[in-house]
Amino acid sequence: MWRYEHPTEILFGQGVSQNLGDYLERKNIKKALLIATNSLVKNGLTADIVDKSAGRIVGVVNGIEPNPTIENVEMCASQARELEVDYIIALGGGSVIDCAKAVCAVVAENYTAIDLMEGQDITKALPLIAIPTVSGASSEVTGTAVISWKEKNLKRAFTSPLLYPKTAFVDPELTYSCPNHLTAISGIDIIAHSLDSLGSVKSNPLTEHFAVQAAKLAFENLEAAVNDNIEAKDQLAFAAILAGFAFSQTGTTASHACSYILTAKYDIPHAEACAFTLDSWFKINAEYKPLLETHAKNIGYKNVDELVKELNGLKTKLGLRTTLEKLEIPIEDLDIIVQHSLEAANMKNNIAPVDEEMVRKVFLSK
Amino acid sequence: MWRYEHPTEILFGQGVSQNLGDYLERKNIKKALLIATNSLVKNGLTADIVDKSAGRIVGVVNGIEPNPTIENVEMCASQARELEVDYIIALGGGSVIDCAKAVCAVVAENYTAIDLMEGQDITKALPLIAIPTVSGASSEVTGTAVISWKEKNLKRAFTSPLLYPKTAFVDPELTYSCPNHLTAISGIDIIAHSLDSLGSVKSNPLTEHFAVQAAKLAFENLEAAVNDNIEAKDQLAFAAILAGFAFSQTGTTASHACSYILTAKYDIPHAEACAFTLDSWFKINAEYKPLLETHAKNIGYKNVDELVKELNGLKTKLGLRTTLEKLEIPIEDLDIIVQHSLEAANMKNNIAPVDEEMVRKVFLSK
Repeated sequence: MWRYEHPTEILFGQGVSQNLGDYLERKNIKKALLIATNSLVKNGLTADIVDKSAGRIVGVVNGIEPNPTIENVEMCASQARELEVDYIIALGGGSVIDCAKAVCAVVAENYTAIDLMEGQDITKALPLIAIPTVSGASSEVTGTAVISWKEKNLKRAFTSPLLYPKTAFVDPELTYSCPNHLTAISGIDIIAHSLDSLGSVKSNPLTEHFAVQAAKLAFENLEAAVNDNIEAKDQLAFAAILAGFAFSQTGTTASHACSYILTAKYDIPHAEACAFTLDSWFKINAEYKPLLETHAKNIGYKNVDELVKELNGLKTKLGLRTTLEKLEIPIEDLDIIVQHSLEAANMKNNIAPVDEEMVRKVFLSK
Repeated sequence: MWRYEHPTEILFGQGVSQNLGDYLERKNIKKALLIATNSLVKNGLTADIVDKSAGRIVGVVNGIEPNPTIENVEMCASQARELEVDYIIALGGGSVIDCAKAVCAVVAENYTAIDLMEGQDITKALPLIAIPTVSGASSEVTGTAVISWKEKNLKRAFTSPLLYPKTAFVDPELTYSCPNHLTAISGIDIIAHSLDSLGSVKSNPLTEHFAVQAAKLAFENLEAAVNDNIEAKDQLAFAAILAGFAFSQTGTTASHACSYILTAKYDIPHAEACAFTLDSWFKINAEYKPLLETHAKNIGYKNVDELVKELNGLKTKLGLRTTLEKLEIPIEDLDIIVQHSLEAANMKNNIAPVDEEMVRKVFLSK
């Protein structure tokens, strides 16, 4: 038995973000706060968006960090309260959208960011419009936000049907000016989400369709997109939606479970950290779930082995580090890394049962 | 640019309808009206469902006709008003679910069924739970209801985001006892919805993905399902969801436009009427939209020609009539049939421009 529900309205197409003003008017949204990345403030996109809102965007916050923190959430929430906004708009990558989701909950519930981190329930949230400027995290079509509490070395994922954006404006044009290394690493995130979803205990025929198509499109288009091919960038924006449709239902699994400590302790970017163990876990899961052989074919490869080999090749081509040594992680830290990975909640979500020895091997298998 | 939104929660799996009682309790639904097909009343399923509701289903209506009428809607609406229900549950095929959708609007708006037929807006609707007992119409996952006004020889389709069921319990077990001829003809409906969706001006990469997968599964499983293969029946239940995801967004096109008069005037079952011209329209649309060649491959055939040939073969195998003569429609009626087909709203939704001569040829091409 399985369940599927996906409440986000998706508006997709080159230039679709130009319609935001009309959308705000049509929905009678009077006071929105825009949470935007710094880089976009620089290139004028934020000003353009504010301009088109005809006064309906009453404030802009930026300065959200790559792994958004409780301080980022507090800063935005305080602005939202002061301006008494009824809507939040997020313009940026996954970090900005994740931060905005936490703000939606914190403001509606009258919580502090720490209340949220300490496990207070989400029973209401301000409505959110998500406008991604990078294709990868899929936060525009998921009900999850990941927030960091640096002081406690803690990173927590919140999931609620209330955190799905009401509407996602997926405008591939906004990704055209994305720096190539960011296109690369975010594109790898699409593959990580897809393969992780296929290896989830909650995977079902519908999410498998989405994950396979997402992985196929990402494998087919990632290199071209990094080389500035516009059509490939359009396809990645679409692939990110499909991946989001998959892992929003199934959650992520072992490669994500193994990534958190790498990001928290060694500052490895999220997608690179996931990619680090992704190929090994896909192979392990395929032994446990033979259907992954069929999926590997439908993704475009002869079998799981070929997919894994190609994934490894892609990682190298895109400049991702593939050994602990290259990550400059001392081998003495392995015990704590393995322990953290095993303790991550989504490790239990992995279809193949995982033990300490297995995780150790995966980290050393490069 | 395209838009996608699909608000229905889907619960899928053998036996999932057994959870209805828990669901009603969890959602605190106190007074629901069950609209159920006659055949199910006969086999005790309705009684079982009422039993499991622990008093939350306060009334049962049956007697809905294959093409539900304004009288059917009025009968159910009057029950719903009398019992002051807050929820409608539909248990049956597309006709029952369509009728229930109209009831949801009529009761919430305090309309008569004729108000609805005469074009009154739908601004609110009672929430609906749909439990399909046949795989085909996909009404459990669409926002459309088709109602007949026999006196005026009128069949009208209503579409609104408010008409999507809140939740669809898609329990393939309920289709296992479906008579074989009904399994066959409803399965053909899945193919008709998928191919029509692929030929829509509103088709987009996401709906095409759904339509291709739906058609593939339906072609692969329909004959086996008709021959009582349980797994094939499960696949058809899933295929119907995918087809609904596609045509709920794109609408239907030429084969549906050509079907209405066949059903209204000659009582040809809906899916048989759609199938009658379906192969011809797919071929015509493929000339206009070459991407359909790729889709034909992904559905599992060498090309459009082979798909069309197989579809024709399938129609014959399943006992569907493929000439006007076999339908016992006099050739003198062709003018009026062509005129009606051209006037149907979804004809404008067809990707290849259509003229009178073309429609005439299609009807005679068998």
